Amino acid sequence: MSNLYEEALALHEKYHGKLKVESKVPCADAHDLSIAYTPGVAEPCREIAKDTEKSYVYTNRGNTVAVITDGTAVLGLGDIGPEAAMPVMEGKALLMKQFAGIDAWPICLDTKEPKEIISICKALAPGLGAINLEDISAPRCVEIERTLIEELNIPVFHDDQHGTAIVVLAALINALKLKKAKPEDMKVVISGTGAAGSSIIRMLYNYGFKKIYAFDIDGCLNKKDADSYNDLKKELLNYVNLDDQNYATLADGMQGADIFVGVSAPRLVSKEMIRSMNPGCIVFPMANPEPEISYQDAKEAGAWIIGTGRSDYPNQVNNLLAFPGIFRGALDAKATKITEGMKIAASKAIASLIDEKDLREDHIIVSAFDERVVPSVAKAVIEEAKKSGVVRQ
Amino acid sequence: MSNLYEEALALHEKYHGKLKVESKVPCADAHDLSIAYTPGVAEPCREIAKDTEKSYVYTNRGNTVAVITDGTAVLGLGDIGPEAAMPVMEGKALLMKQFAGIDAWPICLDTKEPKEIISICKALAPGLGAINLEDISAPRCVEIERTLIEELNIPVFHDDQHGTAIVVLAALINALKLKKAKPEDMKVVISGTGAAGSSIIRMLYNYGFKKIYAFDIDGCLNKKDADSYNDLKKELLNYVNLDDQNYATLADGMQGADIFVGVSAPRLVSKEMIRSMNPGCIVFPMANPEPEISYQDAKEAGAWIIGTGRSDYPNQVNNLLAFPGIFRGALDAKATKITEGMKIAASKAIASLIDEKDLREDHIIVSAFDERVVPSVAKAVIEEAKKSGVVRQ
Repeated sequence: MSNLYEEALALHEKYHGKLKVESKVPCADAHDLSIAYTPGVAEPCREIAKDTEKSYVYTNRGNTVAVITDGTAVLGLGDIGPEAAMPVMEGKALLMKQFAGIDAWPICLDTKEPKEIISICKALAPGLGAINLEDISAPRCVEIERTLIEELNIPVFHDDQHGTAIVVLAALINALKLKKAKPEDMKVVISGTGAAGSSIIRMLYNYGFKKIYAFDIDGCLNKKDADSYNDLKKELLNYVNLDDQNYATLADGMQGADIFVGVSAPRLVSKEMIRSMNPGCIVFPMANPEPEISYQDAKEAGAWIIGTGRSDYPNQVNNLLAFPGIFRGALDAKATKITEGMKIAASKAIASLIDEKDLREDHIIVSAFDERVVPSVAKAVIEEAKKSGVVRQ
Repeated sequence: MSNLYEEALALHEKYHGKLKVESKVPCADAHDLSIAYTPGVAEPCREIAKDTEKSYVYTNRGNTVAVITDGTAVLGLGDIGPEAAMPVMEGKALLMKQFAGIDAWPICLDTKEPKEIISICKALAPGLGAINLEDISAPRCVEIERTLIEELNIPVFHDDQHGTAIVVLAALINALKLKKAKPEDMKVVISGTGAAGSSIIRMLYNYGFKKIYAFDIDGCLNKKDADSYNDLKKELLNYVNLDDQNYATLADGMQGADIFVGVSAPRLVSKEMIRSMNPGCIVFPMANPEPEISYQDAKEAGAWIIGTGRSDYPNQVNNLLAFPGIFRGALDAKATKITEGMKIAASKAIASLIDEKDLREDHIIVSAFDERVVPSVAKAVIEEAKKSGVVRQ
């Protein structure tokens, strides 16, 4: 791993970052400039002034996504500030281009105030096709995303919340096919109620999982402690612990569980806890950079289907499977929002890329390099956006 | 001209704007991604978190300029809004790339509130090498630029103010060589005290012109009317009308003048007014899109050296001569500001590109396509920045 870090440092130093801006149009002589710039440029300006929808015709807006962070929750590094967040944002923008042909620009904001972040995003919107919020700490990220979804008519998507959730659901859809089980019969334990955890809980519930128990540093989410919860956690009580269980610890909750999903902290799960789950259990320990339990330990303790965040084990739950196709689809659909329905459609599209006969416990999810992923996800997102009417006319 | 507009509209529609984002680094497989993105990317993040100056090493920051507008004063079109301003901002960004190799990103803000524009620019700064303010109406543009120069340690430059001013001064430097005259002996009349006019006045004064008279819709700037002036106009009284002339009209002021510079409105100057100037007079009518007096009329009325904003007449006063080299120099110098001294150095560098023996009344300024322009301006800007110590260490 240390070699990887050295190699990364050398690459970033050599190229001074990873992105560049290029021209799409001829720009060789005075005539070219009189078309691309003054005086000719006045004409598209006038057309857009008459009808702002024309901004999608005469500018790059319809293929432009801003990747916006405040640097408060960067990778596993935490609140490292806006300057230090930039390599990740450039990387994210790079992936948008490589995987979905999107022109994405990284924006690292020198403010942590949700109201200010919201008003900046709103002010930036006239030049943007969509906004990808990135690495903003919970629960602030939820307030910021919801307000922007409400108040803007371009898609806004916080990948840390929904990207992982979409892929977890895709993996679980295939795991249940293999297991021949129904979501409503599964006892699901989620460790972590932050950005990713809360979106996973919401998506699983909306898909049909009803026996969900969520744990975080305060223990098992339950109604009797609701007064001490922030608004986000209070809302999760609509989806979790619906039969008011009184689990004292994560270990208690995992007894008899069918599915464990971890987006929390390293080494929270022991082999003993895996052994206490139901036979044929599904275990996704995805804490970053070190998981709740290692792949080997989970396997040895009897977990049947294991998904991790890592590329060096089977079943990588990689949000790269989701966001490029999500944004490609949302832009192409002229969507005004990315709805829960569009996210679930994306999960189903990802899951569908493995034929049922080819499913195996170590093959429930395709690689992010599978070239079918982005078009499939985009197509599903476009269809759902049109069906639910969240598109510009 | 109508064909030019049709051609421009077709080009913008065909390409959907003019800019794209591209990768500077290899991005073909999982290994490439593990270096450009997770997990390798964590290493440059950690290095920048330790020392934010490293953001210039490990990200594209040092070659990144934001072109920021609120859409209030776009070309000659006025307040057409942020969406409609985008074709111009994309064009400006394109010129940054073509002429100076700079990666510039267009930002069109949905707010006209100077305080909010200032706070947004400050919030964006951690990802930027410099800010080019563009097409923001006066006098708001002056307040916005000054506050940002004061409060940020990256260069901030409002091209509409200073770009034209730098090139006007460059042209006048050569005109005076040809005329064998000294700036302090010249009576100068400026029509227009907005963004460009106020910067021209300031630069000419700082260069050595002392007999400057400025006119706008309220007539000749003078101390006795100061109470009715906004702060910007009040400040100009330090540079203009120092002998308290009481000109009733622009025509009165132009009698016996040696130099006329117009950045105001169409058809304000008659042939009679040009005839009332001193022999061998220098006339730069540059109102956009239609000048204060046409080139032909000025010539017929006896103007000796004529500069215009147009490419189809001699001596085009084109701000494209200034801003690419200014930004290239400021970025390469690691400048924290673009000072008045750096602007004057740029003017001198542009002027110096024509040997004194080659100067003619229809050749006092080089073409923006002259390949020596950007390196010469950048070099002069770098030297002056280092000399005056406005550079990061």
